[in-house]
Amino acid sequence: MPTMPSTAFVRRVLVAPSGFKESLGAEQVARAIGAGVRRAIPGVRVRTVPIADGGEGTARTLAAATGGSIVNRTVTGPVGDPVESHWARLGGDSEGRAVVEMAAAAGLRLVPQDRRDPTLTTTRGVGELIAAALDSGVTSVVVGCGDSGTSDGGLGALQALGVRVLDADGQEVGQGGVELTRVESLDLTGLHPALATGKAHVVLALNPHNVLTGSRGVARVFGPQKGATPEQVEQLAAGFENWARVLERDCIESARGTDFAQGVGTGASGGLGAGLAAVGASLVPRFEALLDSGLAGIDLDKSIRGADLVITAEGAIDFQTPRGKVPAEVARRAADQGVPVIGLAGTLGQGSDAVHGIGIDAVASILPVPMSLSEAVRDGEDLLIAATERFMRTLMLGASIAEARLVGDDW
Amino acid sequence: MPTMPSTAFVRRVLVAPSGFKESLGAEQVARAIGAGVRRAIPGVRVRTVPIADGGEGTARTLAAATGGSIVNRTVTGPVGDPVESHWARLGGDSEGRAVVEMAAAAGLRLVPQDRRDPTLTTTRGVGELIAAALDSGVTSVVVGCGDSGTSDGGLGALQALGVRVLDADGQEVGQGGVELTRVESLDLTGLHPALATGKAHVVLALNPHNVLTGSRGVARVFGPQKGATPEQVEQLAAGFENWARVLERDCIESARGTDFAQGVGTGASGGLGAGLAAVGASLVPRFEALLDSGLAGIDLDKSIRGADLVITAEGAIDFQTPRGKVPAEVARRAADQGVPVIGLAGTLGQGSDAVHGIGIDAVASILPVPMSLSEAVRDGEDLLIAATERFMRTLMLGASIAEARLVGDDW
Repeated sequence: MPTMPSTAFVRRVLVAPSGFKESLGAEQVARAIGAGVRRAIPGVRVRTVPIADGGEGTARTLAAATGGSIVNRTVTGPVGDPVESHWARLGGDSEGRAVVEMAAAAGLRLVPQDRRDPTLTTTRGVGELIAAALDSGVTSVVVGCGDSGTSDGGLGALQALGVRVLDADGQEVGQGGVELTRVESLDLTGLHPALATGKAHVVLALNPHNVLTGSRGVARVFGPQKGATPEQVEQLAAGFENWARVLERDCIESARGTDFAQGVGTGASGGLGAGLAAVGASLVPRFEALLDSGLAGIDLDKSIRGADLVITAEGAIDFQTPRGKVPAEVARRAADQGVPVIGLAGTLGQGSDAVHGIGIDAVASILPVPMSLSEAVRDGEDLLIAATERFMRTLMLGASIAEARLVGDDW
Repeated sequence: MPTMPSTAFVRRVLVAPSGFKESLGAEQVARAIGAGVRRAIPGVRVRTVPIADGGEGTARTLAAATGGSIVNRTVTGPVGDPVESHWARLGGDSEGRAVVEMAAAAGLRLVPQDRRDPTLTTTRGVGELIAAALDSGVTSVVVGCGDSGTSDGGLGALQALGVRVLDADGQEVGQGGVELTRVESLDLTGLHPALATGKAHVVLALNPHNVLTGSRGVARVFGPQKGATPEQVEQLAAGFENWARVLERDCIESARGTDFAQGVGTGASGGLGAGLAAVGASLVPRFEALLDSGLAGIDLDKSIRGADLVITAEGAIDFQTPRGKVPAEVARRAADQGVPVIGLAGTLGQGSDAVHGIGIDAVASILPVPMSLSEAVRDGEDLLIAATERFMRTLMLGASIAEARLVGDDW
């Protein structure tokens, strides 16, 4: 039984994966999967489109995709200590645009386990990165929201961008969500000139389902996983109510009429959405911002249209995957065009079966032998290449069986 | 993209796995794979043929396959302490036949790590099981050889079957391979009557490549992994030379002319092959003995002939698989008939790619997430069902792609 089907099986494969958090960037994942595909089907055409999701790795992935560069910068970290961070200056058709990854300055991973108090952490470093990008003269800054470790409503980011955030006595408040209940007004006179004049525009790429206040508000939904106690959750929730009230009244002219409390994405990254919207930032669903804006010069839908097969991947495929993760987004777009999708994962967790319902036709894990997570992370690239080859061989065998249409007898 | 191909994909699946050592018996493996296949393809016909390889699990697998029963019996273990053991009384068309699994009485797993001295371990318990089966009136005893922890040339087994093994002074020797150098003669007058009269026949199912003496002899090839020091290897090798000489001279009439030193399978299970051959046992390549003898009422080749797909499995698929393991045997027979074969494994170890060369068209591991070996063993059944379903879905997707023959454009 030859494993290679007699007729052309798949001639064009689109590889559109996410990064594997803490292991491989999306571009490394894409390259490894591409190598595995070519091992299984010599001569196949492979196109790689690494997908940034706004979280960790977004800046590097988009810099790589456009031939841009990474600008390193030390900023204020989420607990106040300096952290080495970076932003991306895009290249090619995206020249003049910048990408700031909020997780690179205020991500949960930058908050030491023993200091996970979300009433104190700050987004100041995110504002510092945005200011640095604006200072360099770019006209557009995309801020990827995701994997955040803060819940300050963007207070720190606004402060870093020149906004004075004042209490009832007209004194500047300190840092962290704990301060939000006592905020009384904003003074925008010192706002970064590129924003004040509208010369540059900030776009937040975010999960539109996150809102600032209420029972589905960011304090109640995400506070606990950032380390908030039940009391702190209520404290933050009350702070966000007050914050929305102040932002609504004192925001920049162009932001008038925004629903800061319940508007789409206002709760993204611990309320960073609401804070930056007050100085004119647009809040855009992340895949729309990252895939459909021409940001990286790649048209995902067009790449899907020409493919016989799409391979997506993420570090973990599980019950959360259908809720807006990269493989779900890729599958949704592929399903629209009737192109089959397979998914590779470092971990196939609880509920991974559910992905069949969102158009991922088959999944596989990359693990060949019992091993620890740290071993899997260490060897991720080789495991991915080998697993892709096995996956493709299985697909090819299925094709060859279909073609042979073996008919047995006497069974 | 529907995952179900438009035309019948596979209608008849043969599941022919080995057991997963220390985790699942072959019949459990077969059942789990069958369940996974049915989940992926409702209405498919599945036939399960669990394959015994002569090693651990052989007696239970064949008892289950024939509707026979397991007879428990405490026997002398490999280090002399009593061990709870068992033999199988086959049922159905195999009524009147028994299966003894040497590993159940003298397996390596029954030898404590700190007592792994292969010059001392004994096969006496194997002889006790054979004697028990003969006493029950069966006319045929198949002895599965594999996973042994002994190197006594079958000395202990012969002693248990009534043979007096004597030194130069006419005194009975003790137990273990250490005694073989001083053996001078056999006294068969007390041999179990069923063997002495030829009323019953013993067949050893073994690896034919194992021979008793010489550079490829069992002392040198297997001694070290049973715990022998280099000195003990030489001691055992010398003992086997002497043992072959004595067996040749003093064996039962029907065994005259046997090449006890270099004959096929004489080295099986630490020389058990040679010892039992001296009282008339036939030494038969294991898959011939276990699959082609009608032993379990199953004709593997006929089952393969009617199948659209064969699924085999083993605890580990790796560089050793092509060297006569169950998946290799199944694949060889399937290749003869042009039926495709896929292989599932708990572990896809080094060199698992090599199985493509022996007719296994695609392989997959059962592991969905990073885990330890003990977790994989504990959850083996559920992991196997889920992995089979994933594997089948991938095959089906391949079939559906082949049928759709998507042609893209503008890529």
